[in-house]
Amino acid sequence: MTSVSTNMRLRLPLLCIILEVILIILFGALVEYNDDTHAKLWNANKSHSATRDDYENEFYYRYPSFQDVHVMIFVGFGFLMTFLQRYGFSSVGFNFLIAAFSLQWATLMQGFFHGMHHGKIHVGVTSMINADFCTGSVLISFGAVLGKTSPVQLLVMAIFEVTLFAVNEFILLSMLGANDAGGSMTIHTFGAYFGLMVTRVLYRPNLDKSKHRNSSVYHSDLFAMIGTIYLWMFWPSFNSAITNYGDPQHRTALNTYYSLAACTLATFAFSALVNPEGKLDMVHIQNAALAGGVAVGTAGEMMLTPFGSMIVGFLAGTISVLGYKYLTPVLESKLKIQDTCGIHNLHGMPGVLGAVVGAVTSALASPGVYGDGVFADAETGKWNPQSRGGFQAISLAVTLGMALFGGLVTGFILKLPIYGAPPDTHCFEDGLYWEVPGEEEGHELNEVATPNEMEKLNS
Amino acid sequence: MTSVSTNMRLRLPLLCIILEVILIILFGALVEYNDDTHAKLWNANKSHSATRDDYENEFYYRYPSFQDVHVMIFVGFGFLMTFLQRYGFSSVGFNFLIAAFSLQWATLMQGFFHGMHHGKIHVGVTSMINADFCTGSVLISFGAVLGKTSPVQLLVMAIFEVTLFAVNEFILLSMLGANDAGGSMTIHTFGAYFGLMVTRVLYRPNLDKSKHRNSSVYHSDLFAMIGTIYLWMFWPSFNSAITNYGDPQHRTALNTYYSLAACTLATFAFSALVNPEGKLDMVHIQNAALAGGVAVGTAGEMMLTPFGSMIVGFLAGTISVLGYKYLTPVLESKLKIQDTCGIHNLHGMPGVLGAVVGAVTSALASPGVYGDGVFADAETGKWNPQSRGGFQAISLAVTLGMALFGGLVTGFILKLPIYGAPPDTHCFEDGLYWEVPGEEEGHELNEVATPNEMEKLNS
Amino acid sequence: MTSVSTNMRLRLPLLCIILEVILIILFGALVEYNDDTHAKLWNANKSHSATRDDYENEFYYRYPSFQDVHVMIFVGFGFLMTFLQRYGFSSVGFNFLIAAFSLQWATLMQGFFHGMHHGKIHVGVTSMINADFCTGSVLISFGAVLGKTSPVQLLVMAIFEVTLFAVNEFILLSMLGANDAGGSMTIHTFGAYFGLMVTRVLYRPNLDKSKHRNSSVYHSDLFAMIGTIYLWMFWPSFNSAITNYGDPQHRTALNTYYSLAACTLATFAFSALVNPEGKLDMVHIQNAALAGGVAVGTAGEMMLTPFGSMIVGFLAGTISVLGYKYLTPVLESKLKIQDTCGIHNLHGMPGVLGAVVGAVTSALASPGVYGDGVFADAETGKWNPQSRGGFQAISLAVTLGMALFGGLVTGFILKLPIYGAPPDTHCFEDGLYWEVPGEEEGHELNEVATPNEMEKLNS
Repeated sequence: MTSVSTNMRLRLPLLCIILEVILIILFGALVEYNDDTHAKLWNANKSHSATRDDYENEFYYRYPSFQDVHVMIFVGFGFLMTFLQRYGFSSVGFNFLIAAFSLQWATLMQGFFHGMHHGKIHVGVTSMINADFCTGSVLISFGAVLGKTSPVQLLVMAIFEVTLFAVNEFILLSMLGANDAGGSMTIHTFGAYFGLMVTRVLYRPNLDKSKHRNSSVYHSDLFAMIGTIYLWMFWPSFNSAITNYGDPQHRTALNTYYSLAACTLATFAFSALVNPEGKLDMVHIQNAALAGGVAVGTAGEMMLTPFGSMIVGFLAGTISVLGYKYLTPVLESKLKIQDTCGIHNLHGMPGVLGAVVGAVTSALASPGVYGDGVFADAETGKWNPQSRGGFQAISLAVTLGMALFGGLVTGFILKLPIYGAPPDTHCFEDGLYWEVPGEEEGHELNEVATPNEMEKLNS
Repeated sequence: MTSVSTNMRLRLPLLCIILEVILIILFGALVEYNDDTHAKLWNANKSHSATRDDYENEFYYRYPSFQDVHVMIFVGFGFLMTFLQRYGFSSVGFNFLIAAFSLQWATLMQGFFHGMHHGKIHVGVTSMINADFCTGSVLISFGAVLGKTSPVQLLVMAIFEVTLFAVNEFILLSMLGANDAGGSMTIHTFGAYFGLMVTRVLYRPNLDKSKHRNSSVYHSDLFAMIGTIYLWMFWPSFNSAITNYGDPQHRTALNTYYSLAACTLATFAFSALVNPEGKLDMVHIQNAALAGGVAVGTAGEMMLTPFGSMIVGFLAGTISVLGYKYLTPVLESKLKIQDTCGIHNLHGMPGVLGAVVGAVTSALASPGVYGDGVFADAETGKWNPQSRGGFQAISLAVTLGMALFGGLVTGFILKLPIYGAPPDTHCFEDGLYWEVPGEEEGHELNEVATPNEMEKLNS
Repeated sequence: MTSVSTNMRLRLPLLCIILEVILIILFGALVEYNDDTHAKLWNANKSHSATRDDYENEFYYRYPSFQDVHVMIFVGFGFLMTFLQRYGFSSVGFNFLIAAFSLQWATLMQGFFHGMHHGKIHVGVTSMINADFCTGSVLISFGAVLGKTSPVQLLVMAIFEVTLFAVNEFILLSMLGANDAGGSMTIHTFGAYFGLMVTRVLYRPNLDKSKHRNSSVYHSDLFAMIGTIYLWMFWPSFNSAITNYGDPQHRTALNTYYSLAACTLATFAFSALVNPEGKLDMVHIQNAALAGGVAVGTAGEMMLTPFGSMIVGFLAGTISVLGYKYLTPVLESKLKIQDTCGIHNLHGMPGVLGAVVGAVTSALASPGVYGDGVFADAETGKWNPQSRGGFQAISLAVTLGMALFGGLVTGFILKLPIYGAPPDTHCFEDGLYWEVPGEEEGHELNEVATPNEMEKLNS
């Protein structure tokens, strides 16, 4: 593989420019402001243009959530992946690139499947949140192939993954009527198994040639904690960002908050327990502590109760740590799945857990708990809770199938030797695709400003 | 003390799991959704389920403030303490652990004292903010013992401190009718003097054996500035998060904004002034610039005016810098108080200043300034402003007494040789409790990718 | 220049204290709570004190935007400039200092020109946003002189720049009736050309003596990316923070979101294209990817459409990268403009582009698109769109004139040898003005805790 050039000079600019031109053309042809963002329609929709009406623009009830989600996508995912010692530029930078592309492409794909009005895609803050959600799925898959792919490969992966994400989301939400506000299925399970299949197809038998770079250093782990903490803090906003207004949004944030808190205690407990010397492992803290947010992505908007949320969070943290410790090495050695960030432990298993919890919670729903109509968004009487639980379970199966199949096909497309992928000897290294500055030259700097000189200057 | 094992393998998991199981059981027995988060009650409370009603869910008026507070607790406090050269994992990590525990325990304790409805604790966004506030108090105390305690000790400290915090808060707010929206007394004064007493009891005569690690390096100071800046920016949200709706919330944010700005100029001024060469000290900038937020924690919601806020902020910054320079060394040498982060300068003295300012501002309140009823939340006519100022002053005394007594008892409990505390020779060091990766190996990395190889790859 | 002392011991404290005392006196004499922050007026303005009224306090519709802007000012600008290897303390710290001063001074200056009510300046969340905006302009100029100025010089620059900013803003918004919600002209164009003129006057022929410090190291580039990403994420909030309520605010955020996404793809494309090996340059990613936000600062609130926004963003990213590559070296060698951060490429050219786009979009506005009244905030019928476009163009010319003239005068004032400016040999170095800790001493630390000792401790 070393004989293949990794030079991006033509490939990356060409792909970026072509994609952006296509996006611009499609946006010009298809995308319109929705009623809440259109100067004429917003006024026209109101009987009078009083101030109170403007206060009811959906902007004020969704935008703070959007910004929290936005931070998770760009800072959370971006910095979480900076844990590698010499891959920080790529982690934050490629995360930035593929997210900026994916959110545009997702606006079109999601709009095409469930946002068309008279042949036009209507956009506003809700479409922005949904596009960011879809982007999150791509970034999860990025975690599996981190360090082993060129930016061109990542963009190509995003094209396919976003498209399939929109199809799967359409099947789940519109055809099966599933609930999945925080995306345990649509985002986490889909993104994880898609990415795992891609990395399986891209299996590198000689990856240990780059092994010395596939680990952290002290400061890179602190940068990664910036990502972790932001994901953790804003996950309540993530899960509640597109629920119905009022109590569902409020309840989802609350449930997620408790799930994450319980998950964090489980993570610290099991991280110390599985280490012979009882020492905590940064990998666990950075990742497993977030599994509680993934695992209430479906049931968080339901009447799961804080009690239920904490149990789910505790379980999620536990299986995630155990996964990092015992399952990831097996996946690599037996199934040839090289999962750089361990997305199976953070998004895969907790996502499936979240789907199951959602199905069970749906099946147990009753009017006595939820009031008029089982779930505010359902057509009353169409389904009973049991069949609703069944549809949730079917949704999980569909998602797994779509993700594995999509990842398989995409993996083979990415295997073509035309994308400038890094050779086995130079994985996990920024230097291939970035101008990298030297290390800090402490000595020289100190020489320049000796204490004597300083004294003179400050006299 | 060196003969005692610091191995956490059984102690930490056992404590975490037992605590979380107790929390889950108590949440199952006692905690319920409040009206704004409950699917049935939210609908039932409304005459009809129109959209406008959903827009009045307290979620939309408190949650943005909650998220700002949340960032302060997890990023602000967590990164502020990363200034130590080899204690970044513990600073962010233990901050994360004890905060995740404390917010759950605080929900129960605060609910028990002032959130019970028919034997149940009702939760929603306001309880989330209050739990985060209580957690902040524990994290302040953490700053005093930073680097000298095991995670097990910290969790035990949190158990006691949260409990006493709730008792003190109940006495102040419910029994004495005090105003303390931003917690100059309940959070800062309490947390500071509690922590100072704990560290006094845990006094280590031979701590200078770890002295070479009790300082910063260049990059660790930059990580700490992340914490500082986030605390500084979001302090207006902190002080205003649980005030009454409308003008008090708006006014509190405004007053805090000006107090902090003035405090920052005072901090830079005195930091340069107390240095023989006129050089600025990062310790001052990281900490003293925040004292202005602490000092308007009580009076911020009152008609303090921007003018008054700026005076208070300027004073707070001044005493804080002078405290770091002249008082902290004396506290250590004379009173045997080893205060790692200087919480006495950031939270202790500015907290007392804030309480005094609050008492004076209360005593000076008049209907001519505040309109109907002195302070919107008081029962009209029950107290005159002067007695109100008196109750504020009594509240400060109660808080100091509770904090010192609670810290004393908790300190002796933490002194038991069963928690795996670090020996004097290994304080301020992540390696005891964490798997720590090596330093960046610049040479080896550069060797791997020589310019020649690179050229070949990119050709 | 080396013979001049850089000791700040008297200069900086004196200036800070004098400025803050003046500010406090002027605030005491001139500043009052506005109706939404005043305890008495807020109640008095309402027929009754029902809860719903409190929900309509402007706090709830502006404050989340304010906090996003606040993060951009203190974290965004502050960390963006930490890219220099030994100037991180100064970048974040001086940014902090001059921002804390500028927002107070801006409150007075802006209030004086367009916020006076019966001789008093009324403050609330809108004045907070406007003060932060003005501060942003000063921080842009700071980018041009970064590393070459003392904190005293920076404060003096801020005094003059804030004052002229307020004058220019008054001419544009109040006299010419221009639209510039996101400040393409008032903030970016003004701040950029003001700063470029200052750095031109302060030209240092021997700056290459500090050349070895005028570059990044690996970790400093990652700190800078924190700044970049926060600016990028919150730019939609920046541009929409002070638009009219309802659809304009919503639309502005949406347009900015798409402009930035398109800009990011252009940035990656051209960064790889202009590099002989096709490698990405961190300077481009950190800066040019933000130009899309600058370039829709005027037209973002108009019916620019996502399509139009993406075209503008793509162009902005392109010219910004090309500017860094080809124009900045020429500006330095031919025009003697030493622009440390390349503000001409991030704020200058994209700001002018934004002004032109705003003028064209204004000229093309029609009632058929905007509904009743061309632009909600205009007096209907006073101007036709064409003349409106003309006034926008005049506004750009006025801004350029004010900025260049103001920067010229300010530059000469800053050239006086009384501010303790760094000598040519010690530019871009924290050590002149800060107590700087040593580098991480890996060996010593590892010696202290040998594996054997560790084993003993953990046994």
